[in-house]
Amino acid sequence: MEQDNTILIVTHGNIGKELLDSASMFIKIEQQVHVIGLYADDDINDVHKKVKNFISHHAAVLILTDLLSGATTRIAALSLQYPQVEVITGMNLVMLISAIRESLNYDVKTLAAVVKKTAVEDIVNVRKRIDDEE
Amino acid sequence: MEQDNTILIVTHGNIGKELLDSASMFIKIEQQVHVIGLYADDDINDVHKKVKNFISHHAAVLILTDLLSGATTRIAALSLQYPQVEVITGMNLVMLISAIRESLNYDVKTLAAVVKKTAVEDIVNVRKRIDDEE
Repeated sequence: MEQDNTILIVTHGNIGKELLDSASMFIKIEQQVHVIGLYADDDINDVHKKVKNFISHHAAVLILTDLLSGATTRIAALSLQYPQVEVITGMNLVMLISAIRESLNYDVKTLAAVVKKTAVEDIVNVRKRIDDEE
Repeated sequence: MEQDNTILIVTHGNIGKELLDSASMFIKIEQQVHVIGLYADDDINDVHKKVKNFISHHAAVLILTDLLSGATTRIAALSLQYPQVEVITGMNLVMLISAIRESLNYDVKTLAAVVKKTAVEDIVNVRKRIDDEE
């Protein structure tokens, strides 16, 4: 059965928008992926309202944020009171590609675990990787 | 002794530029951080020449790329023939902040290890983290 997960990106500035633009170079994006940017002069409460409003209109939401210790994550974490929301921090390009690719295949908790694992595995010291393979 | 490391970001599209803009919201950037973007209509050889030229003018270079399996990493990896170059993939915001903060404190090999560790540690399932702390 297809899962009804929606992806919400919450980042500082245009990071989320640019990651989504670049992800579209690698994968066909058929579902809606929503991006909320937090800018220097934004009111945190307004951004929180946007996130809350988004979640209230979707069955299950995977939120990807850019920085564990950032305001984006603090805002996203407020939505963890809803059981159908998961938040993964430290977003990189492969995390987003994985979320888009797998969003219909797993319930939101499993999806969160899958994209976290994929994101971590993409962080590689290339010289060490090559040395290990030789 | 201060280390003479330079940071070079190589990403698809504007990801690198936006991560750098957002990093400047968190840390004072006093050193030069160079960004090369790879766009859909770019010639890979031209981008490789830019990277090679940059490296030839710097003592030690830490290259951060966005995607392990991407052209950006393939281009960067060609420069690993030079011992003073290191490449870390799967770039996220904290990886860049860490590289900027620590670039003068370690030799380039150690710097690469430090930023890789920091980047991995920032990828967190927030619900699990909160549950574990309770």
